[in-house]
Amino acid sequence: MKTRLTDAFDLEHPIISAPMAFAAGGKLAAAVTQAGGLGLIGGGYGDTDWMERQFGRAGNARVGCGFITWKLAEQPQLLDLALGHAPAAMFLSFGNPAPFASRIANAGVPLICQVQTLRDAQNAASCGAQVIVAQGSEAGGHGEKRGTITLVPEVADWLAVNAPDVLLVAAGGIADGRGLAAALMLGADGVLVGSRLWASAEADVSQAMTDAAIAATGDQTIRSTVMDKARNLNWPDRYTARVLRNAFTDRWHDDLPGLLANAQKQADAWRKAWMAGDPEGSNTFVGEAAGLIHDRPPAARIIEDMVAQAEVLLTQAKGWTG
Amino acid sequence: MKTRLTDAFDLEHPIISAPMAFAAGGKLAAAVTQAGGLGLIGGGYGDTDWMERQFGRAGNARVGCGFITWKLAEQPQLLDLALGHAPAAMFLSFGNPAPFASRIANAGVPLICQVQTLRDAQNAASCGAQVIVAQGSEAGGHGEKRGTITLVPEVADWLAVNAPDVLLVAAGGIADGRGLAAALMLGADGVLVGSRLWASAEADVSQAMTDAAIAATGDQTIRSTVMDKARNLNWPDRYTARVLRNAFTDRWHDDLPGLLANAQKQADAWRKAWMAGDPEGSNTFVGEAAGLIHDRPPAARIIEDMVAQAEVLLTQAKGWTG
Repeated sequence: MKTRLTDAFDLEHPIISAPMAFAAGGKLAAAVTQAGGLGLIGGGYGDTDWMERQFGRAGNARVGCGFITWKLAEQPQLLDLALGHAPAAMFLSFGNPAPFASRIANAGVPLICQVQTLRDAQNAASCGAQVIVAQGSEAGGHGEKRGTITLVPEVADWLAVNAPDVLLVAAGGIADGRGLAAALMLGADGVLVGSRLWASAEADVSQAMTDAAIAATGDQTIRSTVMDKARNLNWPDRYTARVLRNAFTDRWHDDLPGLLANAQKQADAWRKAWMAGDPEGSNTFVGEAAGLIHDRPPAARIIEDMVAQAEVLLTQAKGWTG
Repeated sequence: MKTRLTDAFDLEHPIISAPMAFAAGGKLAAAVTQAGGLGLIGGGYGDTDWMERQFGRAGNARVGCGFITWKLAEQPQLLDLALGHAPAAMFLSFGNPAPFASRIANAGVPLICQVQTLRDAQNAASCGAQVIVAQGSEAGGHGEKRGTITLVPEVADWLAVNAPDVLLVAAGGIADGRGLAAALMLGADGVLVGSRLWASAEADVSQAMTDAAIAATGDQTIRSTVMDKARNLNWPDRYTARVLRNAFTDRWHDDLPGLLANAQKQADAWRKAWMAGDPEGSNTFVGEAAGLIHDRPPAARIIEDMVAQAEVLLTQAKGWTG
């Protein structure tokens, strides 16, 4: 396929993998890049040793790296560590990219900013982002409230007038060729894929959690803060995380005071379950696209299938014009 | 344009107008039908006199009628009144259509069921709906949590296996040709348009509320229940309404007990502001698509522009396949 995104990053396909904390290690990032997309390692909460290992696992594949911006602000030295690997791109989400933009630009690395509102898209453009990822609420893991189908065209309209050279990528709920084709129609230059690649052979996700997502419909996810409270993570209030509903969210989602009242006990239990990959005692970070996920193939096959389906739709599209 | 929806309802364009309570009267419904779509009168909460007037205003145009299902259940005789006008379709949303489906079928009127979850889509199909409208959370007014971009393809997959003759229409955040083209890519046979037609010359909406929506970005809406509490409407818990954020939602959204504690006073003030079309003292029922709305043209021009833009995108789509 051919879009402004494939031209700018010399890709075969306009597909970027989401730098999902814990799940998107070097193996997944490399697989996505080798399949013709742009793979990103999920720097997440910033574990130096883990990150070094992931760049190692990616080998010679040209991958990028993503950070949780508000968390990076607590340990800004991690940015230099990542830039030291000459990443194909730096990806920042969930916070203000301004404090980091110039170091990234000076390193000659493209800056990709993920945003959840029009306002933050405007800020990202002013920070010099080369790519803006407009992430809808459908996405798994952290995000906000706006839907992909309105956020993407609204950001596209604003960029067209104010920053026409900035590329736009759609994220949130895109798991197959239909989502990719729809994103292009909405004005995006490509897509960022999270949940569908989270459920790939190369993702660092337990089989039990993957199976839980495969068994779920899209009706069975919820945006909540219970998993952050249980982990003692100080996420800013505006961000919630989408996970599969389970006994843990059913118990605590409407009783945050109760969760906080015995926080340590719950935190210990949650972390133990998380380390065991247990989808009931901890949380399965997957989006509404769970309802479109039915297997756990290699990332390359996911991307091939997505592109093949999109190409059929785009090729036949003229038929609807009657 | 040509889809299964245009074939089934003999339309020029695969566009249905949302039967928005209060806003979608006979004038708007007739204008949409005359422009080549399918116009629906918003039966809403069921005011007999109002509904009769709206069918009168629609004149000879072939329009349908929609109801809030849980409200219709309180006054089921309204269904016969609507069926007496030989509507082009009956549209039910927000509740179980089962108690009404056989009367609609016996009248030979197509049943359109709007749903907000996969589970309700399955129920609608079992009730004999000819058309299922999958409504995402982006929509203005009442709705639920799922996003359009995942709900539509997931329902499409289920229908393909279980009820392939049932048509699928996408709703929620679709306000221009990009949204229409994207909906077709996602597997829909057409779109239901609310907010964009709410801001048309023929809609029964105050100019002040229309202006407020035009001035807003898509970031400035909120899903809440405050407007239902203020109107003493017993909406089931699962449904919230998307409106523009304003002083009223800022004051009460996080203080429902406070709102209920002086309910009568707030209800009176809200209703007075509503009758005056005041976007600050009451609420402006518009979706995230507010950020894509910049004027208040006649419905016919909205539909023409939407179709023209979609046709350009669909015609050029093959270019992305490289």
